[in-house]
Amino acid sequence: MANQDEHFKKVIAHAKEYGYIFQSSEIYDGLSAVYDYGQNGAELKKNIREYWWKAMVQMHENIVGIDAAIFMHPTTWKASGHVDAFNDPLIDNKDSKKRYRADVLVEDYVAKIEAKIEKEVEKAAKRFGEAFNKEQFLETNTKVLEYQDKATSILKRLGKSLEEENLMDVKALIEELEIADPDTGSKNWTDVKQFNLMFGTKLGATAETAMDLYLRPETAQGIFVNFLNVQKTGRMKIPFGIAQTGKAFRNEIVARQFIFRMREFEQMEMQFFIKPGTQKEWYEHWKETRLKWHLSLGMGENNYRFHDHEKLAHYADAACDIEFKFPFGFKELEGIHSRTDFDLGNHEKFSGKKLQYFDPEENKSYIPYVLETSIGLDRMFLATFSNSLTEEILEDGSTRTVLRLPAVLAPTKAAVLPLIKKDGLPEIARSIIDELKWDFNVTYDEKDAVGRRYRRQDAAGTPFCITVDHQTKEDNKVTIRHRDTMVQKRVNITDLREIILQEVDMRYWLQKM
Amino acid sequence: MANQDEHFKKVIAHAKEYGYIFQSSEIYDGLSAVYDYGQNGAELKKNIREYWWKAMVQMHENIVGIDAAIFMHPTTWKASGHVDAFNDPLIDNKDSKKRYRADVLVEDYVAKIEAKIEKEVEKAAKRFGEAFNKEQFLETNTKVLEYQDKATSILKRLGKSLEEENLMDVKALIEELEIADPDTGSKNWTDVKQFNLMFGTKLGATAETAMDLYLRPETAQGIFVNFLNVQKTGRMKIPFGIAQTGKAFRNEIVARQFIFRMREFEQMEMQFFIKPGTQKEWYEHWKETRLKWHLSLGMGENNYRFHDHEKLAHYADAACDIEFKFPFGFKELEGIHSRTDFDLGNHEKFSGKKLQYFDPEENKSYIPYVLETSIGLDRMFLATFSNSLTEEILEDGSTRTVLRLPAVLAPTKAAVLPLIKKDGLPEIARSIIDELKWDFNVTYDEKDAVGRRYRRQDAAGTPFCITVDHQTKEDNKVTIRHRDTMVQKRVNITDLREIILQEVDMRYWLQKM
Repeated sequence: MANQDEHFKKVIAHAKEYGYIFQSSEIYDGLSAVYDYGQNGAELKKNIREYWWKAMVQMHENIVGIDAAIFMHPTTWKASGHVDAFNDPLIDNKDSKKRYRADVLVEDYVAKIEAKIEKEVEKAAKRFGEAFNKEQFLETNTKVLEYQDKATSILKRLGKSLEEENLMDVKALIEELEIADPDTGSKNWTDVKQFNLMFGTKLGATAETAMDLYLRPETAQGIFVNFLNVQKTGRMKIPFGIAQTGKAFRNEIVARQFIFRMREFEQMEMQFFIKPGTQKEWYEHWKETRLKWHLSLGMGENNYRFHDHEKLAHYADAACDIEFKFPFGFKELEGIHSRTDFDLGNHEKFSGKKLQYFDPEENKSYIPYVLETSIGLDRMFLATFSNSLTEEILEDGSTRTVLRLPAVLAPTKAAVLPLIKKDGLPEIARSIIDELKWDFNVTYDEKDAVGRRYRRQDAAGTPFCITVDHQTKEDNKVTIRHRDTMVQKRVNITDLREIILQEVDMRYWLQKM
Repeated sequence: MANQDEHFKKVIAHAKEYGYIFQSSEIYDGLSAVYDYGQNGAELKKNIREYWWKAMVQMHENIVGIDAAIFMHPTTWKASGHVDAFNDPLIDNKDSKKRYRADVLVEDYVAKIEAKIEKEVEKAAKRFGEAFNKEQFLETNTKVLEYQDKATSILKRLGKSLEEENLMDVKALIEELEIADPDTGSKNWTDVKQFNLMFGTKLGATAETAMDLYLRPETAQGIFVNFLNVQKTGRMKIPFGIAQTGKAFRNEIVARQFIFRMREFEQMEMQFFIKPGTQKEWYEHWKETRLKWHLSLGMGENNYRFHDHEKLAHYADAACDIEFKFPFGFKELEGIHSRTDFDLGNHEKFSGKKLQYFDPEENKSYIPYVLETSIGLDRMFLATFSNSLTEEILEDGSTRTVLRLPAVLAPTKAAVLPLIKKDGLPEIARSIIDELKWDFNVTYDEKDAVGRRYRRQDAAGTPFCITVDHQTKEDNKVTIRHRDTMVQKRVNITDLREIILQEVDMRYWLQKM
């Protein structure tokens, strides 16, 4: 736990230091839960988006992409259920006037119990030394068992109350546990109320003609309202998919964990339209296909797991998450949902327009079922970045910080370094850049000793360093150094392009799927 | 004029029919001045964005990209001047309760005068036949001269009143010209008032802690507030640039001309930070460089012109537009602005943080000057699309509709067509797709006679059609047909990739710059 926290802090600091992520409007002391992507972050984000798009759209004959606007007709959000049911349970402290998510207050309380369990484990581990068996300890120690029971029963009651929308009981739970305002210690709470998470705005100028709009809280509805337009103009036949990437907005009350839960974030999602009754096989198909996409990046099989939803959302008949091991534990990275005909059916109802597909094989029309894969681009960024940041102890005892990003996603593929700043070496370096930059991002670095430059590029995640020295003028060869292995090879300048492309070109990575 | 209108209508209809642009939330009868990009539009938009990014960021050692959030700290918009000065002059009709842009009412009035001039020209042209000299007519006909004088003097007075913020005179002008509410004919007007164009929203849940936010009306400020973070973490030396693409929002009262002026739109802009005093040469440099970028696409030199701003914005010491010949005439496509130190200076003032660059050559710190290039992605889309849509009469008298998109920007690079749906031809077609799809978008089409399929791909903008016939099974050759020339060649399947890449790969197009 302590190690995880420390790693997470390093991730956040490193992301800033190397131009990956800055706090939004930092000069104005920032905007809570909003972040800007810096010069390296923008490229990493772009590469993740492109890797997803290529795999999902370009490689699939029956999947096309769209780009719908953030503004949508407000009735869309009535049909989707967001106006009525996209809420967080909030509670105010009457003394401090501060507002909290009621469920998070309870979850934080449970987290403290779990921290106590962890402490007991640490104490015992110290006491027993090598003989310590953690599993056995957790199963037999009375104190621990008591803590565990308490935690479980609290979470169970919270889950039930929320499911039944019994907000009175959520308040009762908070009072029974004597949970206090984390800031002031006051236990003087209001009732729990539902608060809608959509951001509102107004379109148009006059009071009479202004229209209440929402910033879309998810990108999916942009696909559903365009379903028939795409199907008809694209002559699509079921099964087919519509993919899109884009911004969505949620007025989160408790936004935490860096870019994991932001108020403004980007989704990459695909809705796959199928014949009703075939959803089970497509659900399995897309679970497998999406996991393969993740694994193709080589970030460690053990860092992923499926988590089936026990409680299903109102629109789903099956749903699971692909969870990733973030610095703060396994959390949702991607969702795979069998959405049935809920969305299209509701849009039919609310718009009065038929949203049916005529199936030439069945010779009849129906509302297709929908299989959704939805991944948070910023979460994927955090997964990739945090998993790649490593520190190793070298043979000489020094520490090397390496950002082992999958080379296909790295912002800059190669740095070209003249050994020294004169004797024509910078000119050769720049001529190499002028050749390579047509195919991928290359950077130039001439400052400091070459060893320091290597470390700087390691920390920035650049897969290759190319060093130009005096010998280069004789033999037209340079030294190419690999970020991960630190192995150096002497190669012809004319071979550089192919050597690097073999490691960074998306085609080679996608072929691993 | 009539021809232009007709062409514009065709553009809008074609954009829908071929899956380029749909009205937003069409099933709910749309949202005014908001559009969604369909399966082909999303790809064209993506390709334009990428072509710009490659030319501006990847090819320039001293330009990096960022990706700042749409939400920014509200003080940003005080510093930038948008809270105080980003307004439209609006006027209400007291009877109809409708609201209009006062300047547009006057401009529409002038447009009617110009239509009258056009009518006189047409009448005279008919009367004089081939002997008609338009220029001479415009310069000598008394009636026309009278119209022209009137139009000029109205526009001059409007410009002066707006510049001096003399809104009373704008109202007086409307009353003197007896301009009526276009809907009801009423001339009962209120005073003219300024209306801020930014969309507002609220961040956070409690009344006390909620923060009034704006949706950014331009992307530029996201670069300025991050200037020092990027400069320091990226070790950038002046001159250097920061580029970004992203959404911006303006609550336009009169949003017209399809995707030319939308309430939600996307910008591609670059801020170039320079030493004060060097702005003139950089202004010329970027005018030239950006025009080259446009010309590299081969859409016709005569379709572009520079338009120098006579009245400069409060932040600029020089500014011009690159105008493009849209279906409705020459209009702004891109802006090139010498922004001085206005933005960084104001952010210093409002944030209390130093935003200066230490220049090692001069051995002193200063606020850099800024040269901006800013292009509307949606406008670039409209320019490309409308300019590409052509109808030609073929030798046999039939009409061919071709979307002559620059091949580098075309959504789909090739369609693979089996001559007939059996005898193993579809299988060969699909195996060709499986090879080519690693490098670019390819589509499959087996429906209808091959001639009809060619026309469909022509209209969709696909540069190449590849036809598989029975002979293919013998010689492993296919027919490749070029969209623009309709020339067909028989080539080896193994050569397809290289033949197509030579025409569609960005590297070859960028090399024309």
